[in-house]
Amino acid sequence: MTRYGSIEGGGTKFVCAVGTGPEDLAATITYPTTNPEETLGRAIAFFHEHGPLDAIGIATFGPLDLDPSSTTYGHVRRTPKPGWSGTDVIGAFSSSFDVPIGFDTDVNGAALGERRWGAGRGLDTFIYITVGTGIGGGGVIGGEPMHGLIHPEMGHLRLPRHPDDPYAGRCPFHGDCLEGVASGPAIEDRWGARSEDLGSKTERAVEFEAFSLGYAVADLVLALSPERIIIGGGVMHLPGLLEETRLRMLEALGGYVDSPALVDGGEAFLVAPALGNRSGISGGFVLAERAVAGLRR
Amino acid sequence: MTRYGSIEGGGTKFVCAVGTGPEDLAATITYPTTNPEETLGRAIAFFHEHGPLDAIGIATFGPLDLDPSSTTYGHVRRTPKPGWSGTDVIGAFSSSFDVPIGFDTDVNGAALGERRWGAGRGLDTFIYITVGTGIGGGGVIGGEPMHGLIHPEMGHLRLPRHPDDPYAGRCPFHGDCLEGVASGPAIEDRWGARSEDLGSKTERAVEFEAFSLGYAVADLVLALSPERIIIGGGVMHLPGLLEETRLRMLEALGGYVDSPALVDGGEAFLVAPALGNRSGISGGFVLAERAVAGLRR
Repeated sequence: MTRYGSIEGGGTKFVCAVGTGPEDLAATITYPTTNPEETLGRAIAFFHEHGPLDAIGIATFGPLDLDPSSTTYGHVRRTPKPGWSGTDVIGAFSSSFDVPIGFDTDVNGAALGERRWGAGRGLDTFIYITVGTGIGGGGVIGGEPMHGLIHPEMGHLRLPRHPDDPYAGRCPFHGDCLEGVASGPAIEDRWGARSEDLGSKTERAVEFEAFSLGYAVADLVLALSPERIIIGGGVMHLPGLLEETRLRMLEALGGYVDSPALVDGGEAFLVAPALGNRSGISGGFVLAERAVAGLRR
Repeated sequence: MTRYGSIEGGGTKFVCAVGTGPEDLAATITYPTTNPEETLGRAIAFFHEHGPLDAIGIATFGPLDLDPSSTTYGHVRRTPKPGWSGTDVIGAFSSSFDVPIGFDTDVNGAALGERRWGAGRGLDTFIYITVGTGIGGGGVIGGEPMHGLIHPEMGHLRLPRHPDDPYAGRCPFHGDCLEGVASGPAIEDRWGARSEDLGSKTERAVEFEAFSLGYAVADLVLALSPERIIIGGGVMHLPGLLEETRLRMLEALGGYVDSPALVDGGEAFLVAPALGNRSGISGGFVLAERAVAGLRR
């Protein structure tokens, strides 16, 4: 059987796995994201220990250089994350393993995982968003992961603000972009408590959160016409948030997009990831497979 | 030589052409859009007069059913435009002409035209927007025109409003969505004069217009990561509007998207259509060619 290495690289933690696929894992490891040398070094050591491998798939936080014709293909682009700007991620692995390496964003990876085994099955055009420490979005269009000038940065969408919310937002680039007002740290900053400890403030926090997320997913419907939007991440565990976001999405669309998927309440349109927190690591296996087929992203 | 019929169907006027391509036209005709029978009937008569044709390409206003597996493929979907909801556009032509028929939105068609002969040459992923009587957007992703659940409706993006602008907007679905505040009729409604007759109000109107358009193109950058955005339509003739929209776009992005295309002032990123008002009719020829190759959209 073909044995792959898969990595889901997040800003907070790295998950690595070895196996024939996400349903047949030989070994997994999870550890905090520190500096690039240590973080990538632990993955390399783990893969050596559990190899040999036939291919590696890496779905990681970015921004990334995903252009195979670029001299810095496989590197992390300029990022506020200390120490990571310019890190040659693919190079770290290709110098240790002479196997095909697939590489894409964490969210495109998660979308590929959901498409194979989860809530994106049978779909050619859909979006995957995660709302947690940061907010990221990617997806599949016409069957292929989304790329372009660079890759989408849906977390930074500029949107209407809730008229009763004076919070200025905390994005260092944009202040009150989506991530600036709706990420986990923004909730903590805005309400003085983490999203799981909001207590009596939960209802109002959910209202504000759903207001922003509802406009975001509505704008993604208008910009891209996805067949479905999968929305995950820790913040989405806030009670009632998914349902409230659907309502705000439908309100923002105002009945204009006349599709059965959007008029029945949107329950089958805006959904949680079927793979829970395993979308990304599953996607790493798809990226490894794609690399074997000659696709580097 | 292969002889094609091309249609650019707009809400205000229809343009039809026959030839081997947009640079070799045998005949063209332009007439106002009235009811479907008369409007499509004139195109059919024109094609009969200048045939025989090898294929027909139709790029038209919508919303459209573009799903080849749908029983209403080729029909206009529910639209506020009187009389047009449910019109079987492809059927009107296929009952008269036994040739392949390509069919897509006016804006996807324009994008295909610009890709072949204009400002989209060499690009795999870009957006085409038109700002006129309505605002529409489409594009090409991974080399193919944008489709999905239905097709994009970029004109109805929900965006932050200029803090000094009390205008409520005129979109019957959304009030102050992009089209509601930034279309030609919205400008006339807001300022009491058509965009070419604004006189001393021009500067302020351009400021408000660029504010909305700047956020719109910024959000499209964040949602889709296009390699370029082509923006045309009558309203874009307002003096200084394109330049001001670029500035507002860069401001809204806040330096976050670290691409050479976006840091040099964006002159090569946000551009006017190279084909002027011939993008759509040129795209009809591409759709005809695609139909011959077996692609129906």
